[in-house]
Amino acid sequence: MKVTFQIEGGNPVTIECNAGDNLLELARRSNVAIDAPCSGNGSCGKCRVRLLEGELESLPSRHITDEEYAAGWRLACCSKVRSDCAVFVPDIASAYQSRMKTADLSSPQELAIFEDCQDHLRESGIHFVNRFRAVTVSMTPPSLDDTMPDSERLSRALEEALGVERVEIPFCVMVKLAHVLRQHDFVVCVKGELRSGVFHCMEIRGPEDRTMAGCAIDIGTTTVTMVLTDLTSGKLLAKGSCGNGQIRYGADVINRIIEQGRPGGRKKLQDAIIKETLTPILVNLCRHAGIHAGDILRLSVGANTTMNHLFVGVDAASVRMEPYIPSFFHWDGLLAGDLKLPANPLARILIAPNIGSYVGGDITAGTLASGIWDKDEMSLFIDLGTNGEIVFGNRDFLMSCACSAGPAFEGGDISCGMRATDGAVEACVIDKQTMEPTLTVIGDPDQRVVGICGSGIIDMISELFRCGIINAKGLFVREGKRILRDEHGMGRYVVAWAQESETGREVSLNEVDIDNFIRAKGAIFSAIDTLLHAVDMTVDMIDKVYVAGGIGSGINMENAVNIGMFPDVEPAKFHYIGNSSLTGAYAMVVSDDAAAKTAEVAANMTYLELSTYPGYMDSFVAACFLPHTDARLFPHSRQE
Amino acid sequence: MKVTFQIEGGNPVTIECNAGDNLLELARRSNVAIDAPCSGNGSCGKCRVRLLEGELESLPSRHITDEEYAAGWRLACCSKVRSDCAVFVPDIASAYQSRMKTADLSSPQELAIFEDCQDHLRESGIHFVNRFRAVTVSMTPPSLDDTMPDSERLSRALEEALGVERVEIPFCVMVKLAHVLRQHDFVVCVKGELRSGVFHCMEIRGPEDRTMAGCAIDIGTTTVTMVLTDLTSGKLLAKGSCGNGQIRYGADVINRIIEQGRPGGRKKLQDAIIKETLTPILVNLCRHAGIHAGDILRLSVGANTTMNHLFVGVDAASVRMEPYIPSFFHWDGLLAGDLKLPANPLARILIAPNIGSYVGGDITAGTLASGIWDKDEMSLFIDLGTNGEIVFGNRDFLMSCACSAGPAFEGGDISCGMRATDGAVEACVIDKQTMEPTLTVIGDPDQRVVGICGSGIIDMISELFRCGIINAKGLFVREGKRILRDEHGMGRYVVAWAQESETGREVSLNEVDIDNFIRAKGAIFSAIDTLLHAVDMTVDMIDKVYVAGGIGSGINMENAVNIGMFPDVEPAKFHYIGNSSLTGAYAMVVSDDAAAKTAEVAANMTYLELSTYPGYMDSFVAACFLPHTDARLFPHSRQE
Repeated sequence: MKVTFQIEGGNPVTIECNAGDNLLELARRSNVAIDAPCSGNGSCGKCRVRLLEGELESLPSRHITDEEYAAGWRLACCSKVRSDCAVFVPDIASAYQSRMKTADLSSPQELAIFEDCQDHLRESGIHFVNRFRAVTVSMTPPSLDDTMPDSERLSRALEEALGVERVEIPFCVMVKLAHVLRQHDFVVCVKGELRSGVFHCMEIRGPEDRTMAGCAIDIGTTTVTMVLTDLTSGKLLAKGSCGNGQIRYGADVINRIIEQGRPGGRKKLQDAIIKETLTPILVNLCRHAGIHAGDILRLSVGANTTMNHLFVGVDAASVRMEPYIPSFFHWDGLLAGDLKLPANPLARILIAPNIGSYVGGDITAGTLASGIWDKDEMSLFIDLGTNGEIVFGNRDFLMSCACSAGPAFEGGDISCGMRATDGAVEACVIDKQTMEPTLTVIGDPDQRVVGICGSGIIDMISELFRCGIINAKGLFVREGKRILRDEHGMGRYVVAWAQESETGREVSLNEVDIDNFIRAKGAIFSAIDTLLHAVDMTVDMIDKVYVAGGIGSGINMENAVNIGMFPDVEPAKFHYIGNSSLTGAYAMVVSDDAAAKTAEVAANMTYLELSTYPGYMDSFVAACFLPHTDARLFPHSRQE
Repeated sequence: MKVTFQIEGGNPVTIECNAGDNLLELARRSNVAIDAPCSGNGSCGKCRVRLLEGELESLPSRHITDEEYAAGWRLACCSKVRSDCAVFVPDIASAYQSRMKTADLSSPQELAIFEDCQDHLRESGIHFVNRFRAVTVSMTPPSLDDTMPDSERLSRALEEALGVERVEIPFCVMVKLAHVLRQHDFVVCVKGELRSGVFHCMEIRGPEDRTMAGCAIDIGTTTVTMVLTDLTSGKLLAKGSCGNGQIRYGADVINRIIEQGRPGGRKKLQDAIIKETLTPILVNLCRHAGIHAGDILRLSVGANTTMNHLFVGVDAASVRMEPYIPSFFHWDGLLAGDLKLPANPLARILIAPNIGSYVGGDITAGTLASGIWDKDEMSLFIDLGTNGEIVFGNRDFLMSCACSAGPAFEGGDISCGMRATDGAVEACVIDKQTMEPTLTVIGDPDQRVVGICGSGIIDMISELFRCGIINAKGLFVREGKRILRDEHGMGRYVVAWAQESETGREVSLNEVDIDNFIRAKGAIFSAIDTLLHAVDMTVDMIDKVYVAGGIGSGINMENAVNIGMFPDVEPAKFHYIGNSSLTGAYAMVVSDDAAAKTAEVAANMTYLELSTYPGYMDSFVAACFLPHTDARLFPHSRQE
């Protein structure tokens, strides 16, 4: 039996299979890129394909309407092969474009925040220049009177053009040297890196093809985001994001570490990130930017310690096992060729250094991007991802810690939670009297509600609390049209009735959701509280708070203070800085200064292990209330 | 129609074909290795196969006896397919083994010559030391109070042990670091290279495993020879040789260049040398020496310009096409990982530099080994291989040229020619009166004659000439029991009668053989003559003559002078120096000095293109006599 994938804008791919094989698995096995951020559990509805011929056995899905089903649309993850089939696969790049509206630079706001951060780095003295050069040289073609070998001819031309002592020609250039020189009549562009007076060639092209690209990658536990940038101008060439393919081996780092410890696990996890996640995005980004993979001359990675280990393929067991010794914190010996990434094989991969088992390169890159390392003011940097990480300090010291906040801020662990994309409630105001909500929904003006994203949940809990609809424990204490209870008595607040919603199902927030979220915000606040305590400081000493992560620019800081998630400081002190890991990684790949500064910041940062810090657990328990058991900490929290 | 090749010791291979297809071509197309050094012109008789089923149309061949023909033996190159066939193909590896026993350091004499050369290099100030280090470090195992990552722990220990500023850990070490450290309780041996104050790790092992190996490779057009050496002591760990697997694509460089120019040819030729030839030997040598491939930290290659290009996988077409521009002469950017050789992936491959299309790295390595670059005396260095290369000069200048001498010195182009292995006549004296020969045969005392090797042919022609049995043109001018003539009147001298020989076939030297050999020796002498002329010198200015190559240590220099092959200088001035390419490559891999000196020697060597040099052709024609048309050049040549 066989399946043919008709890929939009690409060549068809056919794979042998057996009856009952899962269509998404088959696509992965044959390197056909299908968007599946939920990693095939049927929840995201992104892996849509259209059956052209043959028979699939597909589970029904709320993501496929009857009209769509009739037209052949199916979810690949929910379909089994029943006969020889041909299926149409939409271009994943356009899917990437449409998904993940937060922190992947796809919105003008995100882009503005991103560029703002770069401007601040420039003001801090970070030069956006590097040692990569694209040099066009014109040589006299050889003749019987001038029989210098190709390599020497090229080396001499480059030595003269660049004023360097020596030129190194690697294997990947040597094997095509004769051909490229003759194809372009001995006028070529050579791309490479200047290091200590030596020009290290990396690629050779025709004279017009001068692009040198860098690739910055944010490897999140849940989501991977990537930008391709021009190494000369720093201009963004392409950008994309996608779910981390490892998600099928566990939603959090602990489960993935366990999984990689099984026989063959390291290879499986590494393949999931490199072959299944990064490679397809990178290939697509190159296509969209119109560049060859060989022209990617440097890469950078912002990722947590576990993601870094799994990416490199080294055992991550030590990250969670006493005495918690990772293989590396800082390491600059990795090349794209080592991992067989579609880039120049000699391209160095700058890994933003880890500083502890649970404070990784995403945080050091983010700290760079935040600019707090250059300020006299005391700043708090908070990255809200699947984990929450906190850095506090200024130009004189930096201290960091991590807390396991869970996925609530990205819409996980919440019954109607979702990412900040079309149909998500991203903001909300509730009328105290009528208890009716006024919602802000992402998307077109007529977009119906699909679910609630992180910033929406913060608003909603804050408003429910302000209006006295829930108490400090998050339990419903008022009655009304929108407050319903199930047979066990569990209360919920209806955000959108079934008939109003996009999916035809009620969108609501229940007491379990609220409890989950309170624990998440409690973890964040108690981490901040403990970190301040450790350096003997108090909330009023905080001059700035930088908030980063997938929660989105829609976050209402006052509401976050209101529920006791962030410390009670003036609203003007808060700044949302987007995907700071990606921003920092971008700076590292384009700027040699930024790369060096990230290493310096990491080397100077102190790591505080919360789990063994006296008083942390008490602080956490105290923070699992609205806003806190000690209301004096939140003088501005309003319950009207 | 189809042919099935039943390969000795391998799986059968079947290929579709048409009536009339050439059997050797079919074998090549289906990657069946059949030994065919003459590249299918019917002259060498090596491509023997046995017809098991079906019908072949085969030309008769002097290499196949009637009994053999009846048993099904055919020459593949002379056979066309007439029906579905099955043919037996003898194991080519055993064919390789049985060929070429000289110059691979397998005899005590060769080994003594090899060691002599190294001693002379030491006397010339070449230090046999390098920057590779195997460092055993003992670290404090990590604990909850000492949570430094593995890479940092190792780097610090190495920095302290070596007194270096920085340690670089590559991918291949990082991926196993955690495991090896724990397996050996944090006491490990790290092997790597010191470069400008930085220690570049290459391998990590347990504390006892301190071997650092180097591998020197002589890639001849016909034969590959390899030694594995200890990089610390310079001791030989293992040695081996084998036919060059490319031989099935042609016996000489010209045929191989044509072959590599066909679609897919470069890959085929590269696979033949790397996958089929070098890899199996290297794996074997490692096994014999009891070392891991990862412990081979540097390799060196002595090979002609074409072999170097085919080895690297770059287009060699330019070597023979105007304006004769190779991709490289000197190149030090190649790593074992680039070619997927079984060695440390970061091991650098030092390629002895080429200096012209037909004077390659085998000659620059050989020149290093000869030591002529360090002498005041004027020396001549002659390498007799499939090509003949000559270098003349001293510490002030070196000039080189190449001549196409053909395979006669290795027993090719001679009806009863063979390599210097068991059963080969390697020396001969003829009684002038009785015309009876006294033979020296390689092998046991009771070894019967199989054929005649290069040194034997020199002796025989010299003796036949001295005894007045042949004239200056190589034609038989005396009659006798051992002098026979065929139906066309072509004379021959019977060296061994059919009943005396190992094969039951007469071993003789005929006028065509002698003519072939005279042209070969004429090519050598005229090249020497032209080179001397070019530097305005004469034979009496030659202080030393170093002879290298597969012709073997048995060569009688006086006889070589007698027939006008070598210039007429005193016998004491001649020295046989064995496989100088391998000797030079060995020095390069062990000694940084030798590697640098080889590059210097190559850079200072001038290349003389004989084919365009005025007077060369005249000189060649004049040299095609015994000893020469100008007998004054050979005052010591004796015709009694």
